[in-house]
Amino acid sequence: MVKIAFDAMGGDLGYQEMIKGAVLAGGNDLEVILVGEENLISTELKKYNDEEKSHISIYHASQIIEMDEEPATAYKAKRDASIIVATRLVKEGKADVVISAGSTGAQMTAGIFVLGRIKNINRPAIATYYPTPNGVKILLDAGSTPDCDKDNLHQFAVMASVFGKSYLKMQNPSVGLLNIGSEDKKGSILYKETFPLLKEDNRINFYGNVEGRDIPKGIVDIVVCDGFVGNVVLKLMEGITTVFVKQIKDNIKEKFIYKIGGLLSKGAFDKIKSQMDYSEYGGAPLLGLKGISMISHGSSDARTMKNAILAGKRAVESGFNKDLIKYFEETNIVNND
Amino acid sequence: MVKIAFDAMGGDLGYQEMIKGAVLAGGNDLEVILVGEENLISTELKKYNDEEKSHISIYHASQIIEMDEEPATAYKAKRDASIIVATRLVKEGKADVVISAGSTGAQMTAGIFVLGRIKNINRPAIATYYPTPNGVKILLDAGSTPDCDKDNLHQFAVMASVFGKSYLKMQNPSVGLLNIGSEDKKGSILYKETFPLLKEDNRINFYGNVEGRDIPKGIVDIVVCDGFVGNVVLKLMEGITTVFVKQIKDNIKEKFIYKIGGLLSKGAFDKIKSQMDYSEYGGAPLLGLKGISMISHGSSDARTMKNAILAGKRAVESGFNKDLIKYFEETNIVNND
Repeated sequence: MVKIAFDAMGGDLGYQEMIKGAVLAGGNDLEVILVGEENLISTELKKYNDEEKSHISIYHASQIIEMDEEPATAYKAKRDASIIVATRLVKEGKADVVISAGSTGAQMTAGIFVLGRIKNINRPAIATYYPTPNGVKILLDAGSTPDCDKDNLHQFAVMASVFGKSYLKMQNPSVGLLNIGSEDKKGSILYKETFPLLKEDNRINFYGNVEGRDIPKGIVDIVVCDGFVGNVVLKLMEGITTVFVKQIKDNIKEKFIYKIGGLLSKGAFDKIKSQMDYSEYGGAPLLGLKGISMISHGSSDARTMKNAILAGKRAVESGFNKDLIKYFEETNIVNND
Repeated sequence: MVKIAFDAMGGDLGYQEMIKGAVLAGGNDLEVILVGEENLISTELKKYNDEEKSHISIYHASQIIEMDEEPATAYKAKRDASIIVATRLVKEGKADVVISAGSTGAQMTAGIFVLGRIKNINRPAIATYYPTPNGVKILLDAGSTPDCDKDNLHQFAVMASVFGKSYLKMQNPSVGLLNIGSEDKKGSILYKETFPLLKEDNRINFYGNVEGRDIPKGIVDIVVCDGFVGNVVLKLMEGITTVFVKQIKDNIKEKFIYKIGGLLSKGAFDKIKSQMDYSEYGGAPLLGLKGISMISHGSSDARTMKNAILAGKRAVESGFNKDLIKYFEETNIVNND
């Protein structure tokens, strides 16, 4: 049975919301270990009956890393922080995956120092997946490594290819390098340097450069970029959908006839909300670590955290990280200097 | 009367479309100088009657810089290219603004070498403006300078503040630094270095860091970022709108009742298309040059080019570039090393 180490203290909405999410994930053939302040958690759990929380246990951690703390400093100062303890449970084999909606930097730092990096991987990457008219696609890095070099981007491309096959069952996934033009020699220095590495690597199905407009269209299965650009892209996609939905609702309110029309076509409109919900996928794995660590949004509510737990379970069952570890242990051509 | 030097040979849709755009701009108290291959242009102009083209003249240029040419090389090799000749007309005072839908790199190179940079400006930036629920906002750089340093970003912030006041009549425009988190110390090295420069500069109304989701919401009047990120952002905003409109149309086709509803609420839906049309503003000025150069999309059609010409006229009349030149000649604190 899959065991989830769940950071009960992460997330903007407070531990009550996190615990509610963990409770909602029950009945899905999994165990959730709530990691955090034992007194707070056990008091909160009294709200739920025995059956609702039969899949839940508590593992005490006395500290919390806040969102605004510098990750490396916090890692040194707070060894008993919930995210570090939860990650340690994965390292020690007491859990199969760690999930948190807390500080991404702290989760990544814990991942690197506690779990360790996969051989031949210099930096981890957050792999997000999102819906497009061409099916679910992957974008990485979504914010784990804001300053990348060409080897990082190259490694991200290879990691995502393995991940896409193993977890999302993609067949020979196409890889696009995010850029400011489709021509081969476009871009900043970093992207110009990365292009030939991807082009010459026959382990990946390289499509070439893709532009911003190609991301939501789903032109390629995997979009590779640095963590700064990827984070901006992901949050922009979320933000624009919010604006779109609000604007159209406001417009419909303007005339009675629009309201009637809006009611009749409500089904078509509701469908678009899920077709373009770039935040609904719950958890994004941190690729490149010797253990599975899944990142959730700081703003996640209980429903989203429930989905994140289910996504964590699927991630464990897919065996993608074993595939990644094996793949990179057997390869030695990912550093180009 | 405002004189427009118009690159008749730029744009993906061919010179016929460009010329049509120039013709459509007639009757607005302006002159358009079509720059390009004289024979082609004069033959094409025969399609139009004298009144339609009374505002149009031709200035011969024998060469064209193609989209895939390396700008600096092309600039050296093709001194009689339409974009270079058109830019020269501005330098020589024969035109007030140059407009092109051709290679952005070539237009920028011509701008830097023919017009020259404004004092204390190291690199130009493309300033785009786009609609939000909070009014029209500015984003720069949209692709002119893919590799920026902190001084570039700092200068962009100051330039856009002057431009926003002068051209868009913004009152004390707020400036946000695009970043991967709202906290002061977030970001890649470049953005961490830039933050204190903006914070300490009392010539700008600095809001702090903004995230991707804040762009379409219009949280700040001016979003500052490097040309790589800005280009991705702009094209992503365009692309997502296209996907949204197509998906909702497809959804509405699925059921008869949705079609009825869609017809009744068509007005509300049509409105959203212009509310979120991130490409409709026509031309984006290249800030930082001693003359006005406005960039249009490669894919622009005649209607868009007409709008670009009208935007160019407004840009000249606003006097924003004289304001910029004056402002930067009188300042000397924009280089921080």
